[in-house]
Amino acid sequence: MSSPLLEQLIDALRVLPGVGQKSAQRMAYHVLERERAGGQRLADALAVAVEKIGHCARCRDFSEDEVCPTCASASRDVHQLCVVETPADRLAIEQATGYRGLYYVLQGRLSPLDGIGPAELGLDRLHARLAEGEVSELIVATNPTVEGEATAHYVGQIARQHNVRPSRLTHGVPLGGELEYVDRGTLSHAFGSRSEMP
Amino acid sequence: MSSPLLEQLIDALRVLPGVGQKSAQRMAYHVLERERAGGQRLADALAVAVEKIGHCARCRDFSEDEVCPTCASASRDVHQLCVVETPADRLAIEQATGYRGLYYVLQGRLSPLDGIGPAELGLDRLHARLAEGEVSELIVATNPTVEGEATAHYVGQIARQHNVRPSRLTHGVPLGGELEYVDRGTLSHAFGSRSEMP
Ligand SMILES: [Zn+2]
Ligand SMILES: [Zn+2]
Repeated sequence: MSSPLLEQLIDALRVLPGVGQKSAQRMAYHVLERERAGGQRLADALAVAVEKIGHCARCRDFSEDEVCPTCASASRDVHQLCVVETPADRLAIEQATGYRGLYYVLQGRLSPLDGIGPAELGLDRLHARLAEGEVSELIVATNPTVEGEATAHYVGQIARQHNVRPSRLTHGVPLGGELEYVDRGTLSHAFGSRSEMP
Repeated sequence: MSSPLLEQLIDALRVLPGVGQKSAQRMAYHVLERERAGGQRLADALAVAVEKIGHCARCRDFSEDEVCPTCASASRDVHQLCVVETPADRLAIEQATGYRGLYYVLQGRLSPLDGIGPAELGLDRLHARLAEGEVSELIVATNPTVEGEATAHYVGQIARQHNVRPSRLTHGVPLGGELEYVDRGTLSHAFGSRSEMP
């Protein structure tokens, strides 16, 4: 290659998920040819993010403050707490629904084979949170996978210990989806738990 | 979102080609969850690249030095000069073929409607380069597109003005395709069986 620094940049870009050698090359060339200012902005944003973004002491989501803006907000409903596996899941719910309660981000799911147990998911802090007595409904929005279901079951038990009502997202055929392309498990479940038409 | 710095990072990532809102989110979360050291390395590599990488004074390829390592090398054949549109094309040829001559990177192709003429492609410097008298074969490896062919024709004329033999890659490179994405075997074959320009 014509420049060792360029080679280093292409190599470094491969830290990004889904970026192989070819796309890393294309990205590096694109930035150098047409987006130097944007490249500088990205370098700064990355360096600051990596240094300053930690986890919210209340919800464990990413936050640059001790407590994130959502947890600190006076306009959220403190009686509802929604448990999700990842920050991306939290963001998806926030963007798709009108939910105004608070969140709790596990940053994973129970997976004994990978050494991820209740401690790794901060479930001791969830206990403490529910013991505060403010939460009345715990919405368990873990993923509908085997591990996600096991996690949901475990988290639901914690809720009951604190006399908090656990709820779970309805499973079913996605809106706008075609039956033909829905996986068998989902379809079978949706069929079995069909509801009477109004 | 739970963190304004995270929002800035996601926004900044969209400077990369092919990266929309969803992939930018996925990239940011991935780096913060699992690759902080890699993220820091990428931030540094980007900042340095954007600041230090300019263009080689001989071949116009990206280079952090006045003259790039290839142009400065004593082991390349100075009698052959290969003209390409982009640094990515130069790299594809270098990786796919055994070519040991030198390169000239146009950083574009003739495109009058976009205001890209001979001056923008540094063709005055190509004239000067051929006038030096060292080059005996000019391998015109522009893309087999309408604009690439027009550029090849124009560059071929320059070669003839200096009594330099212009050659063109053999078909085998798909019409309308871009060199960068041609498989190595095809590119190597097309390069090896290049024919003299009519
Ligand atoms: Zn929070
Ligand atoms: Zn050079």
